Amino acid sequence: MPTEIFSDAENQLIDECFAFAKALVKDAGELVKEGYSKSNDDMGIVEKEAKWDMVTDYDKKTEAFLIGAISARYPDHKFIAEESEATNSALTDNPTWIIDPIDGTNNFIRHIPFVAISVAFVWKREICLGIVYNPILNDFYSARLGTGAYLNGKQIHCNKLEKLEDATLGHEVSFLRVQKHRERNAKQVLAFASAAQGFRSFGSCCISLTFVARGTLDGYQISELYAWDIAAAVLLIREAGGYCCKPDGSPIDLMDPKIICGATKELCDALVKLNKEALGL
Amino acid sequence: MPTEIFSDAENQLIDECFAFAKALVKDAGELVKEGYSKSNDDMGIVEKEAKWDMVTDYDKKTEAFLIGAISARYPDHKFIAEESEATNSALTDNPTWIIDPIDGTNNFIRHIPFVAISVAFVWKREICLGIVYNPILNDFYSARLGTGAYLNGKQIHCNKLEKLEDATLGHEVSFLRVQKHRERNAKQVLAFASAAQGFRSFGSCCISLTFVARGTLDGYQISELYAWDIAAAVLLIREAGGYCCKPDGSPIDLMDPKIICGATKELCDALVKLNKEALGL
Repeated sequence: MPTEIFSDAENQLIDECFAFAKALVKDAGELVKEGYSKSNDDMGIVEKEAKWDMVTDYDKKTEAFLIGAISARYPDHKFIAEESEATNSALTDNPTWIIDPIDGTNNFIRHIPFVAISVAFVWKREICLGIVYNPILNDFYSARLGTGAYLNGKQIHCNKLEKLEDATLGHEVSFLRVQKHRERNAKQVLAFASAAQGFRSFGSCCISLTFVARGTLDGYQISELYAWDIAAAVLLIREAGGYCCKPDGSPIDLMDPKIICGATKELCDALVKLNKEALGL
Repeated sequence: MPTEIFSDAENQLIDECFAFAKALVKDAGELVKEGYSKSNDDMGIVEKEAKWDMVTDYDKKTEAFLIGAISARYPDHKFIAEESEATNSALTDNPTWIIDPIDGTNNFIRHIPFVAISVAFVWKREICLGIVYNPILNDFYSARLGTGAYLNGKQIHCNKLEKLEDATLGHEVSFLRVQKHRERNAKQVLAFASAAQGFRSFGSCCISLTFVARGTLDGYQISELYAWDIAAAVLLIREAGGYCCKPDGSPIDLMDPKIICGATKELCDALVKLNKEALGL
């Protein structure tokens, strides 16, 4: 079991962090729900680097709430988080919380109910804890390394599906709007949607990955990411029996977060092959 | 007002049908919720013409429940409905109910919460009533010709958005799996996703169209449809201030149900233009 890389005392701390973080993320969900109920005029929407790259007061408030509470309790822990100066921190062996306060900010702004708070705890470069909470639909996902993935307290499993032609896949087609990503994404969309039975584009990486963990989608691929988009959900998928890798088949690297995931090893391998063919690699 | 084509007595019957149908669709929602809570083994899933064209016992049960109750009360009314022999009936001037018991059957099977019951009442070729109910998210949409569109009793409006570059659009990318639809859909996906700010593919036409009516999406386009996919939602969009037409800009024809819709006339026109350019028309 991968938890053997931690001593008993370290495992005890991880358990304590898990209980603490689950309660904290539940509380943070109240903030997100409050924001979601508001009109756009009252959300404090600001454009970041582009028109489609938005942030709201509620992203910032939720992140500040989470980091404030965690750093008060664990002052020596590190953070990698979407809206903070800590954004570009390197990942070290130290205990590190990787946080996305609202994954799917554009869904949040548009009142599309696919939004999530994502909190992962990484130590010695292992994802030890993953929590993803959609407070709008009241879906609370949690996983602790080596002990399974859970949705609202009930264990979840990926589909057993192996054949690409029977799969329903996810991807973020919105990336076609960015010229430098367009050609690659167009090839991937065409290849994935042509080969699979179904194709969805939900506008939230976290939600799509949790859907793979619970067996609702069978696979997902995206490259234009940050560590906080995938860290918690990757553990959920692994603990639910699924597979994640980089699109070229190499191991996931949280600091170079490109991902293909599949409900089974066979499906994940088929997606890696399809992706390579689509991109002429 | 378009209701002037109806006499006072006819308008009174339409009002009566509205009250009757709203209560009936609410009841039908209980059946859909019951089915959604089941595992795939207990849904009675059957393949129709292709692997991705599924029907469940709950589609059939829900449609039988709706048609049974309506025909008991209005024995001379006609039906055009997805799972019945009435499927290919021509639309006449007679009072006609157009029914999709579960729009988004593949979402239903996969427990993706974007599913809807769609019921429209058409008379003298006018869509007089439109009801779309997502019982999983408890979103109940209703519209009566000339009196606005409502979500859970609260009036809804399309976005005022006019510029394509600021829009979030919907489309069903899954149609790429069908070879005869692939080339056209690929061109449309590429054009729409490149021009807009956001792009979603939710796997339910009805849900996507209601999202346009409530201002959550700004536009939607799809061609591979049936009357029951769009009849109710077209009225919702019109009553919410939006515009619907065929992809070539001509008026909606329920029996040749291809659609482009936009939150504003300007956006709808821009989408028609973009679609024509994409397809080289």
